[in-house]
Amino acid sequence: MNEQAPSDQSWFTLLDREYYFSEEVFEREAQAIFLRQWHYVAHVSEVAAAGDFVVVDLLGESVIISRGRDGSINALLNSCRHRGFPVCREKAGNARLLVCGYHNWAYGLDGALRKAPSIDDAVINYDNWGLHRVRVEVWQGLIFICLGEPRTADLAGELDAVAADMIQLDPTRMKKIHEQSVDLETNWKVMRENFQECYHCAGNHPELSLSLDVEATYHNTGDVQRKAEFYGGGSQPRPGMRSISMDGEAKCSKYLGAFGEPGAEIPEQFHAGFAIHPLFSRGLFSVDYGVIFTMNPISPGKVRWTSRWFVHEDAVEGTDYDRDEVTKLWRVSVEEDIDLVTRSYEGMNSRRYVPGPLSASREPTLRVSQALYLDMMDEV
Amino acid sequence: MNEQAPSDQSWFTLLDREYYFSEEVFEREAQAIFLRQWHYVAHVSEVAAAGDFVVVDLLGESVIISRGRDGSINALLNSCRHRGFPVCREKAGNARLLVCGYHNWAYGLDGALRKAPSIDDAVINYDNWGLHRVRVEVWQGLIFICLGEPRTADLAGELDAVAADMIQLDPTRMKKIHEQSVDLETNWKVMRENFQECYHCAGNHPELSLSLDVEATYHNTGDVQRKAEFYGGGSQPRPGMRSISMDGEAKCSKYLGAFGEPGAEIPEQFHAGFAIHPLFSRGLFSVDYGVIFTMNPISPGKVRWTSRWFVHEDAVEGTDYDRDEVTKLWRVSVEEDIDLVTRSYEGMNSRRYVPGPLSASREPTLRVSQALYLDMMDEV
Amino acid sequence: MNEQAPSDQSWFTLLDREYYFSEEVFEREAQAIFLRQWHYVAHVSEVAAAGDFVVVDLLGESVIISRGRDGSINALLNSCRHRGFPVCREKAGNARLLVCGYHNWAYGLDGALRKAPSIDDAVINYDNWGLHRVRVEVWQGLIFICLGEPRTADLAGELDAVAADMIQLDPTRMKKIHEQSVDLETNWKVMRENFQECYHCAGNHPELSLSLDVEATYHNTGDVQRKAEFYGGGSQPRPGMRSISMDGEAKCSKYLGAFGEPGAEIPEQFHAGFAIHPLFSRGLFSVDYGVIFTMNPISPGKVRWTSRWFVHEDAVEGTDYDRDEVTKLWRVSVEEDIDLVTRSYEGMNSRRYVPGPLSASREPTLRVSQALYLDMMDEV
Ligand code: FES
Ligand code: FES
Ligand code: FES
Repeated sequence: MNEQAPSDQSWFTLLDREYYFSEEVFEREAQAIFLRQWHYVAHVSEVAAAGDFVVVDLLGESVIISRGRDGSINALLNSCRHRGFPVCREKAGNARLLVCGYHNWAYGLDGALRKAPSIDDAVINYDNWGLHRVRVEVWQGLIFICLGEPRTADLAGELDAVAADMIQLDPTRMKKIHEQSVDLETNWKVMRENFQECYHCAGNHPELSLSLDVEATYHNTGDVQRKAEFYGGGSQPRPGMRSISMDGEAKCSKYLGAFGEPGAEIPEQFHAGFAIHPLFSRGLFSVDYGVIFTMNPISPGKVRWTSRWFVHEDAVEGTDYDRDEVTKLWRVSVEEDIDLVTRSYEGMNSRRYVPGPLSASREPTLRVSQALYLDMMDEV
Repeated sequence: MNEQAPSDQSWFTLLDREYYFSEEVFEREAQAIFLRQWHYVAHVSEVAAAGDFVVVDLLGESVIISRGRDGSINALLNSCRHRGFPVCREKAGNARLLVCGYHNWAYGLDGALRKAPSIDDAVINYDNWGLHRVRVEVWQGLIFICLGEPRTADLAGELDAVAADMIQLDPTRMKKIHEQSVDLETNWKVMRENFQECYHCAGNHPELSLSLDVEATYHNTGDVQRKAEFYGGGSQPRPGMRSISMDGEAKCSKYLGAFGEPGAEIPEQFHAGFAIHPLFSRGLFSVDYGVIFTMNPISPGKVRWTSRWFVHEDAVEGTDYDRDEVTKLWRVSVEEDIDLVTRSYEGMNSRRYVPGPLSASREPTLRVSQALYLDMMDEV
Repeated sequence: MNEQAPSDQSWFTLLDREYYFSEEVFEREAQAIFLRQWHYVAHVSEVAAAGDFVVVDLLGESVIISRGRDGSINALLNSCRHRGFPVCREKAGNARLLVCGYHNWAYGLDGALRKAPSIDDAVINYDNWGLHRVRVEVWQGLIFICLGEPRTADLAGELDAVAADMIQLDPTRMKKIHEQSVDLETNWKVMRENFQECYHCAGNHPELSLSLDVEATYHNTGDVQRKAEFYGGGSQPRPGMRSISMDGEAKCSKYLGAFGEPGAEIPEQFHAGFAIHPLFSRGLFSVDYGVIFTMNPISPGKVRWTSRWFVHEDAVEGTDYDRDEVTKLWRVSVEEDIDLVTRSYEGMNSRRYVPGPLSASREPTLRVSQALYLDMMDEV
């Protein structure tokens, strides 16, 4: 009773049901994608001074992001090499040494083992027992990590190439004003698919649809036929509107980057951003503020969705912006998306679920992103 | 140290431990039994008018029961053929079209796809993308569905043959006055076995034992040697009592069916009902009210138990009946059974559990029902 | 980047990650260790009179400990031989017969089937359908059970040999004054390892370190090179201190055993105790009070930790001791250990976790205990 997707490619389907429910597929995804892609985890301002550290969770790993005495940024697994205890118990702090609370092994801010009191120095080689290091790259003040062997070594080069507009906003001089995480009962790909099309926006995001140029979303993520890991572009406001907000007005009077200079000219419908596909870190910026979304898959049926909001580092709360106003539009929209992606996943759990037809001409982004996903999966 | 059940069949045992705990057995049961049997899901009065719908959950599926413009009853999987979103978000309502809230695909009340805005009409054949239909039968106003290929096609014929007493009560003209569901940590067969014998009643159901003719339960479910899917008969009140209630009195003054007519004669110890074995929908009716129990297995260790109470459609709450009074006896008894079936299941979890001896002469119903179960399981 | 533990055995490592997370390993542990070792479950004073019973949970089994008319102590699986219902619903009581509440099968205090009302006496042999008996041994008033075939038959002989100091305290004449259980999200071996070394004490147990002679813990568990299931010895107080308590003072003025006699001489730094490795019941006693810890593994990632406190049976609460004072030190210390063992386990969940180096000369207990564990596991 079902049709096969036709060879003329006038329509296509998403993946079979098992891709969304199978533990085995999830583990293959971990090897092929999750552990091999760059993930946004923190802004440099969170580890501004030597000795500063923050602890982030990614794909089941607890990771320390620290700044060394020499100013370098390190990413270290937060699992003591003695018996696994988390070396940093607090989520953030400043320290000269990272000292494990269990038996006092002490590590440098770069993870090197400095002192292991529970074992004689003579019997082990300290060089072999530093904290596991994680690959870390800083692009424009945004810290990304990759837990395994990165698929793309030159993160900065890739982002430079697609997201020049972001550089105009000088992300180095932003500050994070809010962060929220929620664990959703859905597959990460359902969330991705939801995020990659805006056909559902009119009916489900009345607030977002007010300021977002929905029609433009179908066109301006660059060449949607291009099967690539990195994309640029953000959310384009409607003509005459300044920002993606509840009323289209800017919600922070201190603008980002060069646009904050007196007399700076603001391009009509300005927007900037970046995306890493298919498991994306997704930045969406207007001249006044921006948001970075990340996904953290936990199991086939669970994903953590984190949203972080940014304004100019010199913007003063209460004077230049009101935090609730800046964050409101996306808080509301994320809430709406949560309902969509969790209920879709419930419906896909039907024993008779088969993927339905999508339009090759009107929903091309999903097809390209799916092709990219399958390519990556094939490599394992 | 254990005995084998003897070949003279003076006693027998229930199934081995693995039948109650194994995921693999559960999946075989789904294929052989759950998906091939009829389940009671709703009363016609719940979808009385054209466009009325209710959404029911069965065996992991969300199912829409709707009444079309032509008066027909439909059962449809509540999973949009586009990307799986539940087409009906509300549990009940009235609609001209069933419109999916995600991207506005619209379906008729019979599930036919009418409009798919996210894809050009030209590229897909609407005939192939209607909501999945589920088999549905209406017997005497009671709506049953079967999610797969029904083991017994002619549900009405089977029930007519065994449950003529129910027809006397004219179920078409009943109304549901209460429904409750509870998820129990037990295997569905433990609940079935508990329900099929009343040796435990004297010690565990003091309230039920007051009005129920316990001795009669051993005799009057028809021929208990008959290994069949369909049975008739209900719960027989003790001599002189009218109903299965806290005091044996009728709890609704407006009697069901022909018994509601002025001057109608009420047979001594009247009762009616129906049962579908081994995963049963079980109706138990007196002249004044009835209850239908259903089981919805969720996993080897979890089952949803639903109870629905019915009185004459013309009975007026507060005048003809008090809802708490009508429902009290079975609410209390179900509560007692919950304790029995969940604690038995805990006890069966012992590493050394082996099924014990049951009396072939005094507990024949369990043996016949088990034989039926094994026959069905063998067919897969 | 890791070192292999050297052949000169100057250091060693704990087990690989899978030993702590695998279901398959856990089931092998159950067969090789959990079901074959003796576990402390109750004190004789809890079943002082004929007919007294208590119900204990061990390794997923509910077990009845009862005292018969003849004074004997029985251990019986609390799962009715008819259909598995728990014969004893209460956690403790006194009864002439143990009567199952489901269908009234009645058992003697020794588990023998006496009456099976749901089946004709003639058709089954009562001798075959008594409650499953569990091996039980009483040593000095302490009741131990083994759910399977015990690895060591002569429990009393083994404990006599290693724990003569305990006998001085006359455990038969103690009473339990407090019990607490907590389910922890960790592997039982992480808890064992934590309990077998006190390098972590200074930094994590400030209260315990006040009265415990931490240095002595490295020496006085007998010969740590001896790879054995049974050990003696408790927690040695610091010089000049009487007990393991918040201030090193005795917390019960009525001393245990012979030390309670007028004029009895108390050895300096007295302590006594016993341990069963590797899944241990661990007793730690001073002259005034003692505590017995037990572990009850539930799954690879979950273990129940139970603590029971004892004083002299003649000690009077409010006069001779204050219950909160007696129990405080270990309540506080257990709380601290819970944090350590659950967080270590989280850290060990890292994909890159490998066991780290332990000192062969300073942490020998863990190595010996691990060798014992591997020997036992090899036997399956
Ligand atoms: S686990 Fe970190 S020092 Fe022991
Ligand atoms: S999922 Fe229903 S219209 Fe898209
Ligand atoms: S289960 Fe115990 S008597 Fe039936």
